[in-house]
Amino acid sequence: MNLKIAVLSGDGIGPEVILQAKKVLHAIGTVYEHEIVFEDAFIGAIAIDKTGSALPEQTLNLCLNTDAVLFGAIGDPKYDNNPDAKVRPEQGLLRLRKELGLFANIRPIKPYTALLDSSPLKKEIIEGTDIVIFRELTGGSYFGEKKLNDSGTIASDLCEYSEVEIARIAHLAFKSAQNRRKKLTLIDKSNVLETSRLWRRVVKTVSENYPDVALDFLYVDNAAMQIILNPRQFDVILTENLFGDILSDEASVITGSIGLLASASLGTTNALFEPIHGYNPQAKGKNTANPIASILSAAMLLEHFGLHEEAKKIYEGVEIAIGYGVLTTDLNADSKFGTNEIGEFISNFI
Amino acid sequence: MNLKIAVLSGDGIGPEVILQAKKVLHAIGTVYEHEIVFEDAFIGAIAIDKTGSALPEQTLNLCLNTDAVLFGAIGDPKYDNNPDAKVRPEQGLLRLRKELGLFANIRPIKPYTALLDSSPLKKEIIEGTDIVIFRELTGGSYFGEKKLNDSGTIASDLCEYSEVEIARIAHLAFKSAQNRRKKLTLIDKSNVLETSRLWRRVVKTVSENYPDVALDFLYVDNAAMQIILNPRQFDVILTENLFGDILSDEASVITGSIGLLASASLGTTNALFEPIHGYNPQAKGKNTANPIASILSAAMLLEHFGLHEEAKKIYEGVEIAIGYGVLTTDLNADSKFGTNEIGEFISNFI
Ligand SMILES: CC(C)[C@H](C(=O)O)[C@@H](O)C(=O)O
Ligand SMILES: CC(C)[C@H](C(=O)O)[C@@H](O)C(=O)O
Repeated sequence: MNLKIAVLSGDGIGPEVILQAKKVLHAIGTVYEHEIVFEDAFIGAIAIDKTGSALPEQTLNLCLNTDAVLFGAIGDPKYDNNPDAKVRPEQGLLRLRKELGLFANIRPIKPYTALLDSSPLKKEIIEGTDIVIFRELTGGSYFGEKKLNDSGTIASDLCEYSEVEIARIAHLAFKSAQNRRKKLTLIDKSNVLETSRLWRRVVKTVSENYPDVALDFLYVDNAAMQIILNPRQFDVILTENLFGDILSDEASVITGSIGLLASASLGTTNALFEPIHGYNPQAKGKNTANPIASILSAAMLLEHFGLHEEAKKIYEGVEIAIGYGVLTTDLNADSKFGTNEIGEFISNFI
Repeated sequence: MNLKIAVLSGDGIGPEVILQAKKVLHAIGTVYEHEIVFEDAFIGAIAIDKTGSALPEQTLNLCLNTDAVLFGAIGDPKYDNNPDAKVRPEQGLLRLRKELGLFANIRPIKPYTALLDSSPLKKEIIEGTDIVIFRELTGGSYFGEKKLNDSGTIASDLCEYSEVEIARIAHLAFKSAQNRRKKLTLIDKSNVLETSRLWRRVVKTVSENYPDVALDFLYVDNAAMQIILNPRQFDVILTENLFGDILSDEASVITGSIGLLASASLGTTNALFEPIHGYNPQAKGKNTANPIASILSAAMLLEHFGLHEEAKKIYEGVEIAIGYGVLTTDLNADSKFGTNEIGEFISNFI
């Protein structure tokens, strides 16, 4: 297969973890005889520094004309601590999601057996957990109108959803549930929010097409508790953009480190793959960042193109690295291995 | 002291847990010679059934003319599963919060030594945790304009905040931090939301009045993770309405049961005290609901009126009940004690 991949490493630890994912994809290309071509482009704070825009047109055009995007992380402390900044790194990622129509963000949460003791949760709580979160990614308060009055004393964010936006991701989530344990939980705040009530109505209607999937509902406050109390109760979780942002970071604790969690963002014609962790400025350039989330994102990319055997090989490589304790310090405080060594280990396994 | 308390037991397990709080307050009144008078009124689903309104005028007037409100829980499955209902139990609580001007909801999270093994989190993670969450309670998307277009295909919720709304709760939170470990964490999503950026600006400005308090910021997604990874890092948490709703339910796992968590909702002239758990319809009428959250809410009520010794007595009673394993089944699966027995035990201790 020929694959042209836009590589948007971004900021902070983005470049160093994405480098490992590229190594692994390169190894896959060699062993399985695929022509995988990478094209790098800027996004985020580094793009602002170089071009004034968090998503330069050149980057966007590249993404629109490649088979998939491999994304690192974006952000910079200088923007985080300055609420008055006019241009922000995050705008690059948000605009990219919107322009590529990446409405479904898919985040699998499944602890590794070798890491069952690494979670702050007790082993007996997390053992057997296997969740996939479907987070809506191009709607809600991320994209609704934002206002600040002239005197800067009143601000607002509009959270808006349409039936179409809800139905399209709901179908994907139900289809995923059909191939899994046939349970779907919609997480919302329908006792308070109008948008949540629309979610509940639309998802109920969509569910009629999937009679083999059991549908249930949970308020987001209760869900934030249930994910920790009893994560095994969940199979597929479906939720709106901001709730998905919060709950998926929260659920990362089940695996022991957010540095293990990959995601796929899918639209009708485009696809982007990224670790769910952020740009982590403290770790930048120290060879301590965990590259596994990025490497697993590369595996999800291959799966997306039907390269299941190749993806499986990466999953195996990751599992072996973890089994041997070839881990960064987020998972093994005494580890002698860094970002690079783990990338090498897994590439060599391919 | 003379205290007139409006008692709004509400729905589900509300009445049975609030009954225990009344018992305990009655005992306090007798022993410490205070005249504590209760006046019951309807709110929530039961109020809708009886009057058509989730907050009858009579109930509201009572609350406006008493020293404090003791609140149970509201809700009914028949509304939860019907997104088309025009009148909803939650409207009663939300309107009450608004009419009484209860802008600050205060939720302490501190595990009991005897229950350190009851949490899904490891003991070494939660030991020593002592957090107070200040949740803004009368703003944000709970109260912003809600819309549904005529064809029912597009819905929206407006999240709005003003400088004044943010500053008044920020002052309370900073003052609380001054009396504690002098650390305040603002939780927001200022890399995406305009309202969050206003929160960051206003809280920074307010912080100048409290130079002895260290202020830091956390994005809500990261915070949802940090609360589980390392809860000891937090002292006072300050956040907007919906984030506070989600994060405080989440943080309840630290204590082993949401059935232990009390809250105070304060305004300029009014005060309301309520357990943070919901109406839990499955447990209704079974004598299995944990009354401790309600009993502790009563203690917070006494503290609010400067009755520290009396409140301390209740805290001790709760601690002894927990120490002896006088617990409901949420904390001790084999317990022979129910809602009533725990209420009796603690009242008898007073
Ligand atoms: C960086 C930020 C805008 C982004 C989000 O909130 O979507 C991130 O947290 C994520 O989850 O991908
Ligand atoms: C019942 C509901 C409206 C309420 C809220 O979301 O505020 C509850 O969850 C709470 O936390 O008091």
